[in-house]
Amino acid sequence: MRIVIVGGVAAGMSAASRARRFDPQAEVVVFDRGREVSYGACGLPYVIGGQVDHFDKLIARTPEQLRGRGIAVRTGHEVTGIDASAATVTVADRASGRSVTEPYDRLLIATGVSPIRPDWASTPLGGVHVLRDIPDGQALEASLKGAKRACVVGGGYIGLELAEALRCRGLSVVLLERDPEVAGRMLDTGLQRQVRAELERNGVDVRCGVTVQGLTGQGRVSGVQTDRGLVRADVVVVAVGVKPNVALAKAAGARLGKTGAVAVNLKQETGVPGVYAAGDNAEALHRVTRRRVHIPLGLTANRMGRVAGVNMAGGDARFPGVVGTGIFKTFGLGVARTGLTQAQAEDLGLKATSVDVTSTDYAGYYSGAKPIHVRLTGEQRTGRLLGAQLIGQNHESVKRVDVVSTLLHSRGTAQQLFDADLAYAPPFSSVWDVLLVAADRLHRVL
Amino acid sequence: MRIVIVGGVAAGMSAASRARRFDPQAEVVVFDRGREVSYGACGLPYVIGGQVDHFDKLIARTPEQLRGRGIAVRTGHEVTGIDASAATVTVADRASGRSVTEPYDRLLIATGVSPIRPDWASTPLGGVHVLRDIPDGQALEASLKGAKRACVVGGGYIGLELAEALRCRGLSVVLLERDPEVAGRMLDTGLQRQVRAELERNGVDVRCGVTVQGLTGQGRVSGVQTDRGLVRADVVVVAVGVKPNVALAKAAGARLGKTGAVAVNLKQETGVPGVYAAGDNAEALHRVTRRRVHIPLGLTANRMGRVAGVNMAGGDARFPGVVGTGIFKTFGLGVARTGLTQAQAEDLGLKATSVDVTSTDYAGYYSGAKPIHVRLTGEQRTGRLLGAQLIGQNHESVKRVDVVSTLLHSRGTAQQLFDADLAYAPPFSSVWDVLLVAADRLHRVL
Repeated sequence: MRIVIVGGVAAGMSAASRARRFDPQAEVVVFDRGREVSYGACGLPYVIGGQVDHFDKLIARTPEQLRGRGIAVRTGHEVTGIDASAATVTVADRASGRSVTEPYDRLLIATGVSPIRPDWASTPLGGVHVLRDIPDGQALEASLKGAKRACVVGGGYIGLELAEALRCRGLSVVLLERDPEVAGRMLDTGLQRQVRAELERNGVDVRCGVTVQGLTGQGRVSGVQTDRGLVRADVVVVAVGVKPNVALAKAAGARLGKTGAVAVNLKQETGVPGVYAAGDNAEALHRVTRRRVHIPLGLTANRMGRVAGVNMAGGDARFPGVVGTGIFKTFGLGVARTGLTQAQAEDLGLKATSVDVTSTDYAGYYSGAKPIHVRLTGEQRTGRLLGAQLIGQNHESVKRVDVVSTLLHSRGTAQQLFDADLAYAPPFSSVWDVLLVAADRLHRVL
Repeated sequence: MRIVIVGGVAAGMSAASRARRFDPQAEVVVFDRGREVSYGACGLPYVIGGQVDHFDKLIARTPEQLRGRGIAVRTGHEVTGIDASAATVTVADRASGRSVTEPYDRLLIATGVSPIRPDWASTPLGGVHVLRDIPDGQALEASLKGAKRACVVGGGYIGLELAEALRCRGLSVVLLERDPEVAGRMLDTGLQRQVRAELERNGVDVRCGVTVQGLTGQGRVSGVQTDRGLVRADVVVVAVGVKPNVALAKAAGARLGKTGAVAVNLKQETGVPGVYAAGDNAEALHRVTRRRVHIPLGLTANRMGRVAGVNMAGGDARFPGVVGTGIFKTFGLGVARTGLTQAQAEDLGLKATSVDVTSTDYAGYYSGAKPIHVRLTGEQRTGRLLGAQLIGQNHESVKRVDVVSTLLHSRGTAQQLFDADLAYAPPFSSVWDVLLVAADRLHRVL
């Protein structure tokens, strides 16, 4: 059994480890076009911000360590073609430029996503960056030396994390967002404004409803031209979203879903015999909507990889689906969400109602207790939970979103949440945890 | 409709509020023998420790505020008898010493628990305390002036919280525990030792397997005599457990359960027509074991009170049961548990298996990430979860116990926990949250 994996980060490396574990006799070969594999890309903003002291800290295992575990890792090797009928891939050695053909019994396409680069961002100017992998991070890091003014384009997860990171580094930061508010697809409007207020409290100049038209500069960028004027900047980070890398999957004959990512079943099979896809390039089943979605996130990618690894090695594993859980920190604020927002539920034609509760994370009288806001969304008549959005000023307090995530998996109701025997002591929550208060209110209005 | 409530703290006051809300025409009268009602008793150690600056901060609502909401609160009034056939209670005004007879249509017994005072603790010596209500806290506070050596007897929740509080106040602290380890009934042995180590790191002299024989002193306590010698102390706090206050319930003809607390059904009915019981004096259904238990805790008491309040006012509410969730902080350590420990499961004849996982609460590379230990227990063959125990060095990180608590309510399995779409970003967890790692391991060994 020869298992070939294209891409050696979250999904690819999880698959490799699982496949070896399931079938220790299997030959497992991982090709990655980059220099590093098996790293935590989600940690990149924290190296920039200084909370993590070196990019190497993000690397879970080196190629040598992986080889010691029986996984043949070939970095600097780009898979450029797939012949599914012959069950071979074409691999180019980036150093030598030579290509070879390699056979496979099972093939995993774990090519991930690439940052979207609008036309204006295709520039030879220095100081213009995206942040997806370690070389991106190192390039941005090098660019920060002597820089004073940063412009972050895009107010999603990465943009918000980067705004904090660059402020931590002492730069002035302008954040540009095309939509009317930051964190657009993740939160309903009222909560978006709380995120924006936190950025502004921390000195980020947030400008929403702004369209970027181009860049200025000679040799190095000096500004961002927008429909609302020029923003001076000597570093620009473009964080306007990602697109799945699907060229190889298409070449193999795999089908793309409506989202534009690779369509897979719960076994991570593409439909092309022997060819699997997993990770940020693949669609996932959303358990709340029962639709296929493309929400590229770390845990999902790792989990898909595990499932693919077991199945490629002859086992039988199924991807359990996602419920749209996401979490991020920006300055002191923790922001979490799961399921659907009120706006998303309405877009899907669901009869949804939301309640908002502001309380404290710990007992109100306990020192260090800070405000936490919960918006809980449910379906009228059935009473089932549809989603939750949390914003907390002690960032780690919003991790309680996991209680709702867990209930969403089994189509739990507001009543079930209200009935939960949640942990209470003054340094941890109010007697009635804010989730219980929200569940009670939601239950009564559904 | 005249609703009479005996006891004005957690259960009693929740019941009063709910009854008024459900039936705004109902007359609601609350008798409490103390001066304060509607306070958070769980906060008492934190006033002693200085994290809360005044006892008044624990009071949620004053009698005047409650009267403004249509609840007649009569403090300093002790209900001394119940005549269930006549549907009356005898109430003694503690100030005047006079008794009157008051009629009721519905009666709630919410008399709570009292601290156990062993024979040796029945002493006229000054400096010997229990901690249950605000006057207890004020007496202890007064006793701390000029005190240098404290001895805490009992290593349960309260004892552990008090050990921290007294160290915060600069006293030397000896903690005496009869059992071989602290936190005995809450945790399995290995985790108990971690709690003990934290106490010792913070200068608490922990002595387990010690039996107290008596007190020494003249006028004021000077020491605690034990089977292992004398412990010098000018303040002694006795925290060896609580017993339900059941005299009134018995007088009314209510049945006690095997635990010694008042037996109630899910509507909080005692079986005596018109007489309900709720709060720390009542038993609760344990959803994991399906037995009746006596685990007096704040959320449970509040929840029972709500259920009783609705039902007394003519509604139809059911207590959802508990799953044995508990949480406490001692110094930097957070400790949480839910369901059954391995030892408890074995005592019940269940075929249980536990796994232990130590990881970090946040991503390992993120600054501020600290160790978190999870012990997860499940049932062989069925795969269902039985319980979890968590110890974390960032105390708030153990609040994720709520995910397991929520699953225990619906008899969820280790597989279901492993499948949950938990929130991940580096400042909040590892890609695979420690709960997921534990669930994976448990699932594979069950």
